[in-house]
Amino acid sequence: MALPPVNEPHSAYVIIGDLEHMTVTAQLVKYILESRVEAIPQDVRHEAKRALVNIVGCALGGAEHPAMDIAIGALGPYAGPPTCSVLGRRERFDPLFASLLNGISSHVHDYDDTLPKNYIHASSPVASALFAYASVNKVSGPDFLHAFILGFEVVSRIGNATYPAHYDVGWHSTGSIGVFGAAVAVGKLIGLDAERMTCAIGLAATQAAGLREMFGSMGKGFHPGRSAQSGYMAALLAERGFTSGHFPLEGPRGFAAVTAVKYDLDKVVDRLGADFDLRENAYKPYPSGIVIHPTIDACIQLREKHNLTADLIAGVELRVAPLVKDLCDKKFINFGLEGKFSIYHAAAIGLGRGKGGLAEFTDEAVNDPELKTIRETTEALGDPSVMEDSVVAAVRLKDGREVTMTLEGSLGNLKRPLSDAQLEVKFRDQATVISPLQMDAAIAACWALETLEDVSTLIADCIPEQK
Amino acid sequence: MALPPVNEPHSAYVIIGDLEHMTVTAQLVKYILESRVEAIPQDVRHEAKRALVNIVGCALGGAEHPAMDIAIGALGPYAGPPTCSVLGRRERFDPLFASLLNGISSHVHDYDDTLPKNYIHASSPVASALFAYASVNKVSGPDFLHAFILGFEVVSRIGNATYPAHYDVGWHSTGSIGVFGAAVAVGKLIGLDAERMTCAIGLAATQAAGLREMFGSMGKGFHPGRSAQSGYMAALLAERGFTSGHFPLEGPRGFAAVTAVKYDLDKVVDRLGADFDLRENAYKPYPSGIVIHPTIDACIQLREKHNLTADLIAGVELRVAPLVKDLCDKKFINFGLEGKFSIYHAAAIGLGRGKGGLAEFTDEAVNDPELKTIRETTEALGDPSVMEDSVVAAVRLKDGREVTMTLEGSLGNLKRPLSDAQLEVKFRDQATVISPLQMDAAIAACWALETLEDVSTLIADCIPEQK
Repeated sequence: MALPPVNEPHSAYVIIGDLEHMTVTAQLVKYILESRVEAIPQDVRHEAKRALVNIVGCALGGAEHPAMDIAIGALGPYAGPPTCSVLGRRERFDPLFASLLNGISSHVHDYDDTLPKNYIHASSPVASALFAYASVNKVSGPDFLHAFILGFEVVSRIGNATYPAHYDVGWHSTGSIGVFGAAVAVGKLIGLDAERMTCAIGLAATQAAGLREMFGSMGKGFHPGRSAQSGYMAALLAERGFTSGHFPLEGPRGFAAVTAVKYDLDKVVDRLGADFDLRENAYKPYPSGIVIHPTIDACIQLREKHNLTADLIAGVELRVAPLVKDLCDKKFINFGLEGKFSIYHAAAIGLGRGKGGLAEFTDEAVNDPELKTIRETTEALGDPSVMEDSVVAAVRLKDGREVTMTLEGSLGNLKRPLSDAQLEVKFRDQATVISPLQMDAAIAACWALETLEDVSTLIADCIPEQK
Repeated sequence: MALPPVNEPHSAYVIIGDLEHMTVTAQLVKYILESRVEAIPQDVRHEAKRALVNIVGCALGGAEHPAMDIAIGALGPYAGPPTCSVLGRRERFDPLFASLLNGISSHVHDYDDTLPKNYIHASSPVASALFAYASVNKVSGPDFLHAFILGFEVVSRIGNATYPAHYDVGWHSTGSIGVFGAAVAVGKLIGLDAERMTCAIGLAATQAAGLREMFGSMGKGFHPGRSAQSGYMAALLAERGFTSGHFPLEGPRGFAAVTAVKYDLDKVVDRLGADFDLRENAYKPYPSGIVIHPTIDACIQLREKHNLTADLIAGVELRVAPLVKDLCDKKFINFGLEGKFSIYHAAAIGLGRGKGGLAEFTDEAVNDPELKTIRETTEALGDPSVMEDSVVAAVRLKDGREVTMTLEGSLGNLKRPLSDAQLEVKFRDQATVISPLQMDAAIAACWALETLEDVSTLIADCIPEQK
């Protein structure tokens, strides 16, 4: 629709009128305000809980990453009253800084969820702000779940509307679009009215940031954290009456026009409340570049099926998509971070350890002599007939046998999603900063979110006990 | 130059090598680290002091704006230990939040400086962070002046390199580029080394934000504030070793490529240390749309020359550029903000009050019966022969006389800059939250910055005395 004339009261376009005469922002605001958790389909609510099990585990797994210690050392002295918990840490800070920290920890290992349709990791910015908010305000499980679903959907839909132009030019949309999700999720819990929700979206839009040039540095993990903090701040400012432009998405100098050469904002509102992108969310089984996942997966299966151990293996031959070979052709490596992009290391951990968790991508693992030996006897061939989510793996054994496997569609992609049980295993693999009893309680609380009286009990389960 | 191969240590490109083999970011970092205030020409240092007199006055003038009270109400409860002063306020906050507040106050009236070559208001984001830093760290006057000059030049040069594409697409570059200036200015005072200064610039780049869609709302004033805060944060994170990408400006997914369809990064480093954009900085004499400045200016001069008062005036005829008539054709107005874009109100305050300060753009002023009468007897004609910085004004008097003035190049533009004395008058007009004695002291401290031992004395002069 056309924008309203300059002198016409904006609020009329936000609150009143049939959808056809409302801006995209106004339609989105109306949906957020009117949405009720009971109306969200059961499978979507369950998928949201899966996303939360996953992101809480990731936050716990990243809680002691050096990036966290640095951020706390640098900014902690300037944080406000320590009322708010940070997942996986004993310190308390103010909720805005806690949002930033939750965002860093949950994304820093590149182990969080991914929307394959727009490459956004939507849970981190949204959940990071929500857990901070719920640490300092009483929030029921259903309200938390609801706010999370709304935030997630807003992120993914703005992502769809601006994809691929926004991403291709170099925006890390987990940051630059994640901020909207944090703002509306916190805004929903605060109970912002239409005018204030519009300004929350506006103040989110005008803080949208995050460059892909940061990939490979701590700057990448910073993005969802900063977005969580900025979105939370946007909601707080809007609540008090800080004003923004009223056309943050669709205006001629608004988010879409400024950050994407091509976009279709109808995708933001099309079938709102009927279609949910949570159904298309994927969870990584291994904290590494997604293109080495098929090799890890196939090698784990070969090990299990044939009872392989490192000492039995004489050599490995992989046939992978040419792009995979190009991206991950690192055989002689010294650092854990390099292992995340080594197709040879993928074979080594699958065959040598039967798993690909955080422990398989440390410096120690990369320098493990057993894994090194497998890596160095592995050859990889780029083969155009192999898809990027597939692999053909052949393992020669010292006794002369050869075992092979052709894998199509690796674990964790939408065709073969991690089961709830696998998500729990992944959670436990990462959550070592808390006790096994706390792990049980935190996982149970996520699954029982719809009957949880106060999310602060879940948060308490995620704080390491005093040593 | 080409980017270094992926596996080569980045720092070699930052620290070592002749300029030709260094990236733009590396050259900029080298300049910032090696710069000495004594090497900066005297006229540039004086211009920096003029910019500071102006921006401190603006911060004092905006210190009690509703946007400030809202921001403090919304975010103050989450601010850190109250160690840091905010210009024009009695409360203390942490220095990051104080940066945000200094930025809002100094830009909220649209009265701060402008670089006509790229439309950036460079002083606000840089000085806002610096005054916060200097409130909690001892900083000498020369060091402060030096950091301000470096921050200002970095902002303007990145602005030049990406102008007009960056601005035209809809970025409010005062925000989206201002962040770089805050980061390097604070980083210079912290004494970051080359690697850390590179990361400070990177972490600034990845927080770059601010949409022109916010114009006309508090969101506009928020931009330099948020940039000051984000830049300050970038410097603090970098100091502790938080890493960023090493090609934040020139990388294929870096700031320039992502935010401007066309850019020339040579402009960032060309004649660095020889040319200074401070020499091309302009100061607004009136807190209003710049296109009504010629009319205010001419009408003030007519009033002075002919001893006019409101009761003598029978009618006014203005000939202005057609664009000016288009943009500012608002005669029947009720709000101060509307007055900022009314060519009729411009004539009324010039003739009726002989000045155009903050008090002339309040709701009260717009509803002043004397000014209303002049406004309603004023006619404006779009005339293609009149330039945008000019006006032809004719005033008919009740005694039958007519007085006229043709003004070319209005007060405040580069051809007719405000004098030091006029900047002082502007300062006093705005700085009413502090006492006249404090005004004297603050102005004197700005002019004497090169011998000031500790900038905290200047800051103390800018804090209102207890009531």
